[in-house]
Amino acid sequence: MVNDDSDAYDVEIDVRLRDVDFMGHVNNAVYATYLEEAREAYFQDVVGVSMTDVGTVLATLEIDYARPIEADETVTVALTVSELGTSSLHLEYVVRADGERAATARTVQVLVDRETGESRPIPDEWRARIDAARD
Amino acid sequence: MVNDDSDAYDVEIDVRLRDVDFMGHVNNAVYATYLEEAREAYFQDVVGVSMTDVGTVLATLEIDYARPIEADETVTVALTVSELGTSSLHLEYVVRADGERAATARTVQVLVDRETGESRPIPDEWRARIDAARD
Amino acid sequence: MVNDDSDAYDVEIDVRLRDVDFMGHVNNAVYATYLEEAREAYFQDVVGVSMTDVGTVLATLEIDYARPIEADETVTVALTVSELGTSSLHLEYVVRADGERAATARTVQVLVDRETGESRPIPDEWRARIDAARD
Amino acid sequence: MVNDDSDAYDVEIDVRLRDVDFMGHVNNAVYATYLEEAREAYFQDVVGVSMTDVGTVLATLEIDYARPIEADETVTVALTVSELGTSSLHLEYVVRADGERAATARTVQVLVDRETGESRPIPDEWRARIDAARD
Repeated sequence: MVNDDSDAYDVEIDVRLRDVDFMGHVNNAVYATYLEEAREAYFQDVVGVSMTDVGTVLATLEIDYARPIEADETVTVALTVSELGTSSLHLEYVVRADGERAATARTVQVLVDRETGESRPIPDEWRARIDAARD
Repeated sequence: MVNDDSDAYDVEIDVRLRDVDFMGHVNNAVYATYLEEAREAYFQDVVGVSMTDVGTVLATLEIDYARPIEADETVTVALTVSELGTSSLHLEYVVRADGERAATARTVQVLVDRETGESRPIPDEWRARIDAARD
Repeated sequence: MVNDDSDAYDVEIDVRLRDVDFMGHVNNAVYATYLEEAREAYFQDVVGVSMTDVGTVLATLEIDYARPIEADETVTVALTVSELGTSSLHLEYVVRADGERAATARTVQVLVDRETGESRPIPDEWRARIDAARD
Repeated sequence: MVNDDSDAYDVEIDVRLRDVDFMGHVNNAVYATYLEEAREAYFQDVVGVSMTDVGTVLATLEIDYARPIEADETVTVALTVSELGTSSLHLEYVVRADGERAATARTVQVLVDRETGESRPIPDEWRARIDAARD
């Protein structure tokens, strides 16, 4: 669990009306999309590639919902790399709405070959950039 | 973890082209929507109410992705009630694509008052129906 | 406008809770997804190919909304080919909810080469199958 | 059709990876969501209300797609009020990707009573604000 995310990578999310569901709040599944947006921003900005150009797949997703998000709130995702395996990237997230913790989440993401779907090692340049961003 | 889901409640999901993402498979967030569809079918069929008529919110969502789902596959969700708290319903799911395990998932869902958002006890009639469906 | 759709190709759509928006009805954009599902069913069933295997793009989309769709209604789309150009397929749709006309729609769709994005002629076998289904 | 949108109300849209479909471009239905975001921004900014607080429904939607939108492009929507009826608002849109026209669109939107679903007249204060923004 992220207790202090002062070193986190922060992404602002534009909440859309379409994100709101029959209960009048941002739908539970949409949080997973917010996390994906945070990952893509991190990949582009820190790793220097788009997830559309490299292949990654999610192995696990865990979300703890703390409180509902309204359509007119400002949402941010603070992303932290918690572990870097041979082919896998373990990320932790704090989703905030108007500054309040709305959810925490964890994902394990695996780098794969887009042709074969097989996992492949995270390149050394990526590790260097990810490590540099953590310090 | 569900090892044997012979007692599970089974729901068939219509995969939409729109569920597929830039990687060419059903997007990770869409699995959460499939679980929501399974919950709604279970609520309507077993509990006898729609989630649109009672208020429930997700407290936690966990998904382990086993393999990608293609647009043309037949998807089913097997849902099992693993625990019934005062206000909470713990569910476990096995998502299958063409009969193969594509993901397993767990959610904790809380019954709330739609006006106040406060949790409220699961009615006794619901418990009776849920228990009856488990035997 | 389709006045008599007795010759239409009918597709049943599974409405999802997620299709419902902040107004409590199926969101306007989701109708476009229902039309896409109807097209894909038609392509698979009549033309004998999936739209994921051939490239098509929409040129125009027009929807006239007649009445809201509720989450628990049974939705069907009746699809008719109104015109077959060199590279383009003109389709008309009637969307019904619990048997009532909820929307009518028209699309023009162009067959393209997935590599170049350039339009390409509709194959003769497709024309034969589409014509056969119209009689 | 909007030929000159120098007086248009401009909204920037955050394209999400999830907006991209099996064809590798922003899905046709997602354009309708972009238009909805533009409307909501216009309502909040010019009319001074959120569409979540007043009831509006779409009567018609028309989109002409000019060229595909990629996930990494900057998307803007230029919105113009073309006609103001008793209860209806006619809007025209130009969707641009990296500055190029990607689509044009038109919607007719009706103000309704959220309880009854019946149309209701556009308030005079709204008219004044909409007119002021057009000059």
